[in-house]
Amino acid sequence: MDLQGAFHVYDTTLRDGAQQEGLNLTVADKLAIARQLDGLGVGFIEGGWPGANPKDTEFFRRAQSELDLEHARLAAFGSTRRAGVRAADDPLVAALRDSGASVVTLVAKSHDRHVELALRTTLEENLAMIRDTVSHLSAEGQQVFLDAEHFFDGYRANRDYALEVLRTAYDAGAEVIALCDTNGGMLPGWVADVVHDVVDTTGVRVGIHCHNDTGCAIANTLAAVDAGATHVQGCINGYGERTGNADLVAVVANLELKLGREVLPKGLLQEATRTAHAVAEVTNVPPASRQPYVGASAFTHKAGLHASAIKVDPDLYQHLDPVTVGNDMRLLVSDMAGRASIELKGKELGYDLSGDRELVTRVTERVKELEGRGYTFEAADASFELLLMEEVEGTRPSYFDVETWRVITENRPGDEPATEATVKLRAGGTRYVVTGEGNGPVNALDQALRTAITQAYPVVAQFELIDYKVRLFDQGHGTDAKTRVLIETSDGEGSWVTVGVGPNVIDASWEALVDGLTFGLRRHLGD
Amino acid sequence: MDLQGAFHVYDTTLRDGAQQEGLNLTVADKLAIARQLDGLGVGFIEGGWPGANPKDTEFFRRAQSELDLEHARLAAFGSTRRAGVRAADDPLVAALRDSGASVVTLVAKSHDRHVELALRTTLEENLAMIRDTVSHLSAEGQQVFLDAEHFFDGYRANRDYALEVLRTAYDAGAEVIALCDTNGGMLPGWVADVVHDVVDTTGVRVGIHCHNDTGCAIANTLAAVDAGATHVQGCINGYGERTGNADLVAVVANLELKLGREVLPKGLLQEATRTAHAVAEVTNVPPASRQPYVGASAFTHKAGLHASAIKVDPDLYQHLDPVTVGNDMRLLVSDMAGRASIELKGKELGYDLSGDRELVTRVTERVKELEGRGYTFEAADASFELLLMEEVEGTRPSYFDVETWRVITENRPGDEPATEATVKLRAGGTRYVVTGEGNGPVNALDQALRTAITQAYPVVAQFELIDYKVRLFDQGHGTDAKTRVLIETSDGEGSWVTVGVGPNVIDASWEALVDGLTFGLRRHLGD
Repeated sequence: MDLQGAFHVYDTTLRDGAQQEGLNLTVADKLAIARQLDGLGVGFIEGGWPGANPKDTEFFRRAQSELDLEHARLAAFGSTRRAGVRAADDPLVAALRDSGASVVTLVAKSHDRHVELALRTTLEENLAMIRDTVSHLSAEGQQVFLDAEHFFDGYRANRDYALEVLRTAYDAGAEVIALCDTNGGMLPGWVADVVHDVVDTTGVRVGIHCHNDTGCAIANTLAAVDAGATHVQGCINGYGERTGNADLVAVVANLELKLGREVLPKGLLQEATRTAHAVAEVTNVPPASRQPYVGASAFTHKAGLHASAIKVDPDLYQHLDPVTVGNDMRLLVSDMAGRASIELKGKELGYDLSGDRELVTRVTERVKELEGRGYTFEAADASFELLLMEEVEGTRPSYFDVETWRVITENRPGDEPATEATVKLRAGGTRYVVTGEGNGPVNALDQALRTAITQAYPVVAQFELIDYKVRLFDQGHGTDAKTRVLIETSDGEGSWVTVGVGPNVIDASWEALVDGLTFGLRRHLGD
Repeated sequence: MDLQGAFHVYDTTLRDGAQQEGLNLTVADKLAIARQLDGLGVGFIEGGWPGANPKDTEFFRRAQSELDLEHARLAAFGSTRRAGVRAADDPLVAALRDSGASVVTLVAKSHDRHVELALRTTLEENLAMIRDTVSHLSAEGQQVFLDAEHFFDGYRANRDYALEVLRTAYDAGAEVIALCDTNGGMLPGWVADVVHDVVDTTGVRVGIHCHNDTGCAIANTLAAVDAGATHVQGCINGYGERTGNADLVAVVANLELKLGREVLPKGLLQEATRTAHAVAEVTNVPPASRQPYVGASAFTHKAGLHASAIKVDPDLYQHLDPVTVGNDMRLLVSDMAGRASIELKGKELGYDLSGDRELVTRVTERVKELEGRGYTFEAADASFELLLMEEVEGTRPSYFDVETWRVITENRPGDEPATEATVKLRAGGTRYVVTGEGNGPVNALDQALRTAITQAYPVVAQFELIDYKVRLFDQGHGTDAKTRVLIETSDGEGSWVTVGVGPNVIDASWEALVDGLTFGLRRHLGD
């Protein structure tokens, strides 16, 4: 299917989503999110504003060599040229032209008061800015979209001028004009009326960009599509300034599953839950459990009334099959990890559990118990596999025995803090006492542990700790909060993730470090 | 105005909202929430299912003596009588009759398959159950509403039967028939069509009860009202099973502020933000900062582009005045922010910077430089204010001088890890050397620091660390990653957030801890 054709799914998480309070994305974060969005099959990924924001400039630079997108095209966001200069001479326009993105989305004022009060120019010059910038970038070979900012309010204030903005951009070569409900104040009926009028009056190709200030961003987006819009903008997980942008996941799921429109490549909607959660890991914004379609609670049933009927027929109490969006039905009397998913996961890792009901029950119950304490095995495949080995083989793989470990961090204001860790352990028949230094306690522990074990198992020299994530839960208890640590270890060929949990962040990290090394040793040495 | 008259706002937080995963309400919680809802001016509060749930039975019992409602009436929820018995003889119906509630909301099946598969009775008997139970309770003097469960799916499956259910209840004396989108799968256009048909065909008084599984609960509710429904059900903060019920706050705000319908007593909508947060305190579900109208971020602006225009006219970037719902506009200081937002932020904190261009430049540049290193001030207001004081007053407030600090964590596999911290500092002319223990390094440092300073400044005993957040960035560098720590400190009256950054998580936490105490001391002691 042509994702850049008759219908566009356009994600703006990396630009408009990043406006969310508390959300701060590094360039590496942005690259990781772009890969996830591409995996979901969106047609366009708006990467940021090159030229205006150094981080975004770097994103587009690195994207050229580091991103290999299968489905999506990158779009660079920027504004029309400044008043009184030629587009060809405006350095911000040049940054868009030189971004390497094949698509440019230009934001333009379409509300007369905004032109006068915020942009401080004349209505005529605003049109000239749009005409000049769109045609310049089109002539230079880029596909140009226009975001008509504050369109709905502008349409109410001065319909003629608002429509003139659209016509000007379209005549100059803009392929899509996205009508933006920038302050998010619209309701679905109003959006439908305006889009109908725009489509009928101007004939431009209409896109829609909604914010959730009335709680109707998703419905507003659908209303626009129903009225003729063929390009939807939104952010994964509904990220965005204030109350957020339209949640692209729910928009797409509604379009595909409720309205029968195919807008993603076949089969990819089933990646929705995984993708939404993977992006949340990168943004470090805890996923909303009540999020439509992909939330952990979205297909979870608590009421006894429902639970008994679900046994008869799940369709009686579900609006659709959660598998369609890669989610799962859960009954709260039971738990997160059903037997079926344990069996499936085992199979995925090369363990056929289907013949051993008792084993599956045992593993399911251990997973349940550990998840109740805060562990998560969704990301930590290696920790799950160690648990599985333990249950299948009767014993956990072990290559070294730790006697004790200790970390000391000290500082004198104005100095750099100093951290050292001492680890005492036995491996391959020898006792090792090693002290390591680091820029933090976990780094120092990692150094000491690795140095000791490398002496017994030289293969460990190839291992590298490539990612370290901390999440606190039971929040509201200050520094008492429980900690979950996820560690990713690489051996240059592949990588694996382990998990540790506890009230002490260092102890939780230690657990994940030890499992990471153990899993790597098993991979290379076998049993 | 007559809250029980031409238009009903009906809250079901205490019954349907309580089905939310992780939400557990005691009877005292329910009483507290009922008082809050009454203060907001809703017309009806559904308190639970007396007879089916002992907690709910007790709630209705205690409500009679402990609740003194000014605006709302309590509604008891329950089902129609069992098949094959008389309503007058059914103990569950008796519990409703004896609950002391002047309103009873009966749930009834309106989907033929549910009658047969879940209720396991005949379509005829289901009608008899409805007729008998409604007329019995009406005759006993209660006002009866009917929740037509799974109505929209039932209407699709068997329109005639679904409508027959409504007529039966209405003829037996039910004053309102709430059409329930029980599994939440509807979209606004579908809801509108069905409600129109029901109103036209049956003439019953229609209510609406929506769930958010498509992300459209609020829009679906508004669509029903537009089509003739005069009774809206929902839960405060959108609580509820799976993805939640329609958020009653947003429904009411949209009805009053967008659609010009007065549905609450005059002036009470301004209680919305306070009420939503007060209920969240009781439920212990952290308030969603992106919640429409009442979320902490709902009127928060981050982009520099916007901030400069907001100075000109806030209405340019807000869909309405946040005061109408008791919320506030906030500006975030961030790397996307320029001089305009620094100036506005200063003003918000009580510093008039408008006359001093050079000062604003200096502060803006320091903020940019620090944000480049990973600091964030959008949450850390107190750290920003300390920075501002330093620039305005030429020196940073200081109440103690730290000589050194040290933390040791050690463990032996199988044991609990042990952590102790030693802090040496001078305060108020005295030198303190204090050792503290904790369940983790930051907790131990916090104990030691606080113990030392409390001796010099007893007011510190009131301070409590109420939130601690860690974010790693520059990820992909493993345990080398940089750490950002946000700490929230409370003095029982208010709270403030400080930030620390560095490669060492303990050092970054230390910075935020020290700033948190310094800011609190300044608040209480002045300069």
